Amino acid sequence: MSGHVAFERDGPLGVITLNRPEKRNALSLALMREVIACLEAVERSPEIRAVVLAAAGSVFSAGHDLQEMVDRDLAAYRELFDACTRMMEAVQRIPQPVIAKVQGMATAAGCQLVATCDLAVAAESASFATPGVRIGLFCTTPMVALTRAIGRKRAMRMLLTGQPIDARTAADWGLVNEVVPAERLDAACRDLAARIAQASPLVTGLGKQAFYAQIDLDQEKAYAYAREVMSMNALAGDAHEGITAFLEKREPCWKGR
Amino acid sequence: MSGHVAFERDGPLGVITLNRPEKRNALSLALMREVIACLEAVERSPEIRAVVLAAAGSVFSAGHDLQEMVDRDLAAYRELFDACTRMMEAVQRIPQPVIAKVQGMATAAGCQLVATCDLAVAAESASFATPGVRIGLFCTTPMVALTRAIGRKRAMRMLLTGQPIDARTAADWGLVNEVVPAERLDAACRDLAARIAQASPLVTGLGKQAFYAQIDLDQEKAYAYAREVMSMNALAGDAHEGITAFLEKREPCWKGR
Amino acid sequence: MSGHVAFERDGPLGVITLNRPEKRNALSLALMREVIACLEAVERSPEIRAVVLAAAGSVFSAGHDLQEMVDRDLAAYRELFDACTRMMEAVQRIPQPVIAKVQGMATAAGCQLVATCDLAVAAESASFATPGVRIGLFCTTPMVALTRAIGRKRAMRMLLTGQPIDARTAADWGLVNEVVPAERLDAACRDLAARIAQASPLVTGLGKQAFYAQIDLDQEKAYAYAREVMSMNALAGDAHEGITAFLEKREPCWKGR
Repeated sequence: MSGHVAFERDGPLGVITLNRPEKRNALSLALMREVIACLEAVERSPEIRAVVLAAAGSVFSAGHDLQEMVDRDLAAYRELFDACTRMMEAVQRIPQPVIAKVQGMATAAGCQLVATCDLAVAAESASFATPGVRIGLFCTTPMVALTRAIGRKRAMRMLLTGQPIDARTAADWGLVNEVVPAERLDAACRDLAARIAQASPLVTGLGKQAFYAQIDLDQEKAYAYAREVMSMNALAGDAHEGITAFLEKREPCWKGR
Repeated sequence: MSGHVAFERDGPLGVITLNRPEKRNALSLALMREVIACLEAVERSPEIRAVVLAAAGSVFSAGHDLQEMVDRDLAAYRELFDACTRMMEAVQRIPQPVIAKVQGMATAAGCQLVATCDLAVAAESASFATPGVRIGLFCTTPMVALTRAIGRKRAMRMLLTGQPIDARTAADWGLVNEVVPAERLDAACRDLAARIAQASPLVTGLGKQAFYAQIDLDQEKAYAYAREVMSMNALAGDAHEGITAFLEKREPCWKGR
Repeated sequence: MSGHVAFERDGPLGVITLNRPEKRNALSLALMREVIACLEAVERSPEIRAVVLAAAGSVFSAGHDLQEMVDRDLAAYRELFDACTRMMEAVQRIPQPVIAKVQGMATAAGCQLVATCDLAVAAESASFATPGVRIGLFCTTPMVALTRAIGRKRAMRMLLTGQPIDARTAADWGLVNEVVPAERLDAACRDLAARIAQASPLVTGLGKQAFYAQIDLDQEKAYAYAREVMSMNALAGDAHEGITAFLEKREPCWKGR
């Protein structure tokens, strides 16, 4: 382990912290592999119900580590962008919802990471940019997540100019869910995680999985898929418990199956 | 007929009303089949030019009828979600535009129904939620319509937390077209329907059909499809009449072919 | 050449002007062919770094030329909509970003043209509509671009009612990037173009090409594609130069390869 990523557990909450503030939390290959390892450990820990992805220092993440980007060969670049894509995919694959806690600037693959998380809360001081075009390396993989989060013209402007947007604009465009004063950021993330943790982890996990499975299907196939998932969900003990508790006006007691 | 759905005609306008207010307009199997039957009757009635989908009482719809959701077998759940999907598909398949008139809370499949309608007008008192996760049954089929209406992060938050959004937020996110004071809701829906009814029903119907046909295609195929539809439309008598009337600065007289 | 389109070069900027103000810049077949010819000339001119698509007079474009739309046969309509689609595709295919400069009303295929451009800046006096339904010819091909820019319910309302939206609403919905007072429109477009022109044309061009290539793919395929493009980009001389200049805190000197 490079020590560039910290992991803590706080009850049902897991907190993964990008912890390389002296390098603006640049996503080196070693750091990305550590994030993937953390996410995979979370995946194997059913007692963790939600994850906050945070960052140390004043910058959320400046994206790839430019020191690793010069004078490499094609195989090295592919390895880097493969690891980056696997990190993004792991965020969406694990059953626990992942909340980006964005305290500062998130650029390039850092911005992509925010776009990729299931949810995101930003401090008023946060900002977002895809400035690769200015250094001759278009933010092509970040674009995949960015265009799917904020739409065409807005993504195109960010990608072609490299100019940042502020936190309010990011919320207005759907890149983050919520903007709060910096001093409330931690509490806002924990509140959101705690609310998620009240639900059955089985149900949250199958819902998150179905979310990403259906979103790229055409509507007819999405419904065929969703109907089957929902029918199976209805058979689960936690659905029985949840509906019964609701009808009996009591708190449910989840079994996770 | 269960009597849980009312249908009225008012000139070119058809009004379908969910009429089970004592059960918060829960979408029982019987009610959904009646809505489908109403939509199919509208489909066979070319003199109806637009449909308002309304609800009696203070709630628009609370979604599926939980009494029908406990202690059933897989076949029963599949039957329920099949009927629900067929109802949603019927809304989009009939040639007449369907306007949701949302006077109160629309939750789960009730929220999905609003997302599915071609257009929606909400009273300031309306709200929207997908709270299934709280009762152990993730809003998986509602998610199909919701994600396509409001985008990823916003849908994910609604789905994972179950928390409602108000009418203004729904308009801001594109879930409804317009928010009006409660006392203006009926007039706003009728104004919108009347405006739609001024157009050729042939042209409105082919346009609505093409809308849903093209939206899931990639752009190249969407254009190939849309070009052909538009070329055929241009051959229709109503296009000739409409363009001629416009050039002659007179009102068109539609023939519906 | 019909003389209905003007082309000027101003340093790295190409300006294509719809110049048929007496016909509200109607998109006749001849005019569309001229726009395509201009775009293809730009495509072959690597010294042009960005394009502004402007219009003379008080209307941006009223869409197809209705004089060409009456009493034609199917082959003629197909020819017209084929040319229109080829014009839209050319805007997105050329490597240089195309900025719509919208000074007035943009309707039907004129609105589609704005939706199709990579970026758009509008004057406060601009407005947008897809009113074909009122003259018996549904805006079916404009719908392809419009639904992809502003989403379902908003596009459906514009298409079914034909009612215009103002410039602020267009910005709010993501149809244009920015709204400025009319007297600042030219400067705003030139500023945006100048910012784009600072980047390596190789990198801007590959980024724009990848943007449209990935947007219709499902996420997994989009990443597979984007990773490869970005790996190849990283090998390019301009990426080496850009990253090195950044690390050395100096201005880059692009070679275009």
